[in-house]
Amino acid sequence: MTDPDALAAFVEALGDIPVLLDPALVKQRSQDFFWFSPVLKRQLNDMTAELVVCPRTRDEVTHTMAAAWRCGINVTPRGGGTGNHGQAVPLRGGAVLDLSRLDRIVWVRDGMMRVEAGAKLIDLDKILRERGWELRMFPSTKRTATIGGFVAGGSDGIGSITWGGLRDAGNVIAAQVVTAEAPPRVLELRGSETDLINHAYGTTGIVTELELPLAPAMQWRDIVVAFPDFMQAARFCLVLAACPGIDLKLVTTIDSTIVPSLEVLRELVAVGESLALLMVAPSGMTTLAELVSAHGGQIVLDADTLKSEITSGSVPLYEFTWNHTTLQMLTQDRTVTYLRSLFPAADPLALVERMRTLFGDELPMHLEFLRVGGALTCAGLQIVRFTTEDRLAEIISIHEQNGVSISNPHVYTIENGSGHKRLPVNQMGFKHEVDPLGILNPGKMRDFVPVRAPAENAE
Amino acid sequence: MTDPDALAAFVEALGDIPVLLDPALVKQRSQDFFWFSPVLKRQLNDMTAELVVCPRTRDEVTHTMAAAWRCGINVTPRGGGTGNHGQAVPLRGGAVLDLSRLDRIVWVRDGMMRVEAGAKLIDLDKILRERGWELRMFPSTKRTATIGGFVAGGSDGIGSITWGGLRDAGNVIAAQVVTAEAPPRVLELRGSETDLINHAYGTTGIVTELELPLAPAMQWRDIVVAFPDFMQAARFCLVLAACPGIDLKLVTTIDSTIVPSLEVLRELVAVGESLALLMVAPSGMTTLAELVSAHGGQIVLDADTLKSEITSGSVPLYEFTWNHTTLQMLTQDRTVTYLRSLFPAADPLALVERMRTLFGDELPMHLEFLRVGGALTCAGLQIVRFTTEDRLAEIISIHEQNGVSISNPHVYTIENGSGHKRLPVNQMGFKHEVDPLGILNPGKMRDFVPVRAPAENAE
Ligand SMILES: Cc1cc2nc3c(=O)[nH]c(=O)nc-3n(C[C@H](O)[C@H](O)[C@H](O)COP(=O)(O)OP(=O)(O)OC[C@H]3O[C@@H](n4cnc5c(N)ncnc54)[C@H](O)[C@@H]3O)c2cc1C
Ligand SMILES: Cc1cc2nc3c(=O)[nH]c(=O)nc-3n(C[C@H](O)[C@H](O)[C@H](O)COP(=O)(O)OP(=O)(O)OC[C@H]3O[C@@H](n4cnc5c(N)ncnc54)[C@H](O)[C@@H]3O)c2cc1C
Repeated sequence: MTDPDALAAFVEALGDIPVLLDPALVKQRSQDFFWFSPVLKRQLNDMTAELVVCPRTRDEVTHTMAAAWRCGINVTPRGGGTGNHGQAVPLRGGAVLDLSRLDRIVWVRDGMMRVEAGAKLIDLDKILRERGWELRMFPSTKRTATIGGFVAGGSDGIGSITWGGLRDAGNVIAAQVVTAEAPPRVLELRGSETDLINHAYGTTGIVTELELPLAPAMQWRDIVVAFPDFMQAARFCLVLAACPGIDLKLVTTIDSTIVPSLEVLRELVAVGESLALLMVAPSGMTTLAELVSAHGGQIVLDADTLKSEITSGSVPLYEFTWNHTTLQMLTQDRTVTYLRSLFPAADPLALVERMRTLFGDELPMHLEFLRVGGALTCAGLQIVRFTTEDRLAEIISIHEQNGVSISNPHVYTIENGSGHKRLPVNQMGFKHEVDPLGILNPGKMRDFVPVRAPAENAE
Repeated sequence: MTDPDALAAFVEALGDIPVLLDPALVKQRSQDFFWFSPVLKRQLNDMTAELVVCPRTRDEVTHTMAAAWRCGINVTPRGGGTGNHGQAVPLRGGAVLDLSRLDRIVWVRDGMMRVEAGAKLIDLDKILRERGWELRMFPSTKRTATIGGFVAGGSDGIGSITWGGLRDAGNVIAAQVVTAEAPPRVLELRGSETDLINHAYGTTGIVTELELPLAPAMQWRDIVVAFPDFMQAARFCLVLAACPGIDLKLVTTIDSTIVPSLEVLRELVAVGESLALLMVAPSGMTTLAELVSAHGGQIVLDADTLKSEITSGSVPLYEFTWNHTTLQMLTQDRTVTYLRSLFPAADPLALVERMRTLFGDELPMHLEFLRVGGALTCAGLQIVRFTTEDRLAEIISIHEQNGVSISNPHVYTIENGSGHKRLPVNQMGFKHEVDPLGILNPGKMRDFVPVRAPAENAE
């Protein structure tokens, strides 16, 4: 609990910057989708901020940060609040900084855009498309997530089959960052400097603007292919994904045991069939049809992605992929959870098959094909039929022993959630510079210890 | 020599289809760039057709083929005549079929185009660009080559770093083919059926139309980076080429010993420096600059590709790459020739280094990075300081013994020129169907034996 006097002084200092104080509303904006994990649900369910600040401009962000420093208030930034790791859940009270009103497009040119961090992905993509461009990649939460939240809390998604992840060099060109200092600075990070805020959960500064490369707009087709066997579907997906001649935005394999939980899709296929869910450019359809039949599959859906996205009542295929597969499953069965694994690029499917043999229906398999540092492989967002936390830990360690890397989605610190169990680049050193008191999303950077406590600083 | 009466009957039958009979002109249109190879120069220099037929429509092509069948006239199709293997050189007289007047665009839509085979690549790209598209890939002879000649006689080029080669699934959608039968048929080959005419040197039918997927147009930058050392430049190129976040159209490494032969470029660098020649999208420039300095290079040229292409007197960077590197070298030293090698995707640079050690300045190294069947690797278009044909054969076999695949550019048959020394798919069976007399570019499909000789058929 923050000192009430400090809070009052903070609210006072905010002037006419909009603030929410209603506890129910504040609690709501203190949560994200951490409840996908039974472990995080136990740990984070009761966490809440004490107020929400809703700046409308970068100057208001700077003003807020100056006030937070003076009053010793913790600040947890928030975009759409769709993270799965409790990234946006304040562990030590204070303020949620809701950035969703910073949603302007600064410019679009030369295959790049510069936008404010709170812009929603779906809105960006709509405007970009009018100019012949589209987002290179987006999470399956495109309809609700912000670009700032994606860069600060996400990693990859639809589009990563071609463009790799947000961490791949070139996918973030620049970031404007407001620091937690007195007075706050406005920094422009360029190129690899943006790694300092990339997937840092907002612990290393408030991102106010982003410059990102774009992809040329395509008329994507949503394609569903049914296969009698999961491994057959997976092999097809790997072969397809390796075709440089076919423009792809999405290549997903879904186990037959998951299919009954997928509304609409389940009606298209026979019991026991596994699925490939694809987004393919029209120019790839001839070759796709050949590959499908060579692999013993059958195209059971061919629709226009954009149409499905904008038509009410219809669902674009990508909302069955990435972590939306888990969401679809959770709407039917609240006991399941998921894993996030990465199979090695050298023969990924051999290990996929091995894991399937080891775990059977305890881990219904769901693969997302993607490029990682230039190499083609697949990530597993396996469904886990959860029993106990011990068994979950055991499942994770069996994967790691077998050479499958795990980005653990059942922990809330950056370090514990990363495949390498440590911070990338020099995020720690940077945090010491830009947030010496540790008021930014405290507790999320596991190994960070502030030099002074915020209280010592409070007026 | 074709029987004069048969020839006369053929000309008669052509009616008002334009024909060239002037021996000097006919000789000129019977040649291509085979003289890059001292071996082919010896073998092909005196070969010539007896006339050139210049149809303006597909109907005139069909008419010509019907007449050729009746009169027993050999027919060698020709686009721009820029092949390096003597592909378009008639080995047994007869007619050259010049397709360059079939140059209409049938349609452009949905990221695809359907065009007549004789359209020049530079013209296509110009029109496509107005509509927001561009060719996925083109040979460095873009200014003079035709799309039909590229598909029938070429393999890959600028753009293959992203899209792979013409043989990669999805890069040719359909081909319309006129056969050498009585009466000639007009076939529509779709998807992988197009492999039957792909790189078949026109031996399996006259391609009259092609349907190809396109790439969205980009404002490419021509970038030259200088490095103190060749292997340093090559390592940089491999790292760059593996970045999914950077849009690339060209990644070339050129040995320092070649640089003095490259007009303009040689003035940009110090003696002994090796070069990376790149085409990069504007959105990749920030990351590129970082990669360059991390690898100890220096950007010495940054220009607009399109501007260089259309400004008279200026040369787009791609005209220093692929086989244009050899051409540039040949303008200075008529004794050199070249190789076409493919390094294995697993650690290609180890073998590059080994070959450099083995051959030193006898084979100045020149690498083109590209995707082959989804994997990233590099092809060598090494310059060869030619001494004897025996030594050339030895150089080739040393490469093959070391696991470097060679597509021999010193032979004129499809089989001998391929990396696998055999025909792909069922080109032979298809030829038996569509050219039973073997009048299409005779002698180029090494193992083909016609069931009847054309003479037995002549009226
Ligand atoms: C069903 C489902 C599917 C998902 N699919 C994917 C997927 O495909 N790929 C993927 O990567 N993720 C996925 N996610 C996770 C999440 O939706 C995305 O990462 C999303 O981009 C987060 O954006 P957001 O605006 O909701 O961020 P939030 O959840 O609001 O924030 C995420 C993190 O970033 C910080 N943050 C937010 N804005 C800023 C800012 N301006 N400056 C500094 N820090 C900031 C927050 O403090 C928090 O730590 C999925 C989640 C769900 C529930
Ligand atoms: C300096 C230089 C650089 C080069 N760089 C490259 C490169 O980067 N990549 C590459 O792949 N090649 C390259 N080449 C080879 C050649 O330029 C290309 O392959 C080019 O695309 C050939 O097109 P063209 O119209 O000149 O074909 P041509 O030389 O006229 O014909 C090539 C072959 O195709 C046949 N043919 C032509 N048109 C048809 C048709 N309509 N139907 C059936 N058969 C037909 C001909 O009979 C011949 O066998 C290069 C050559 C030179 C001299």
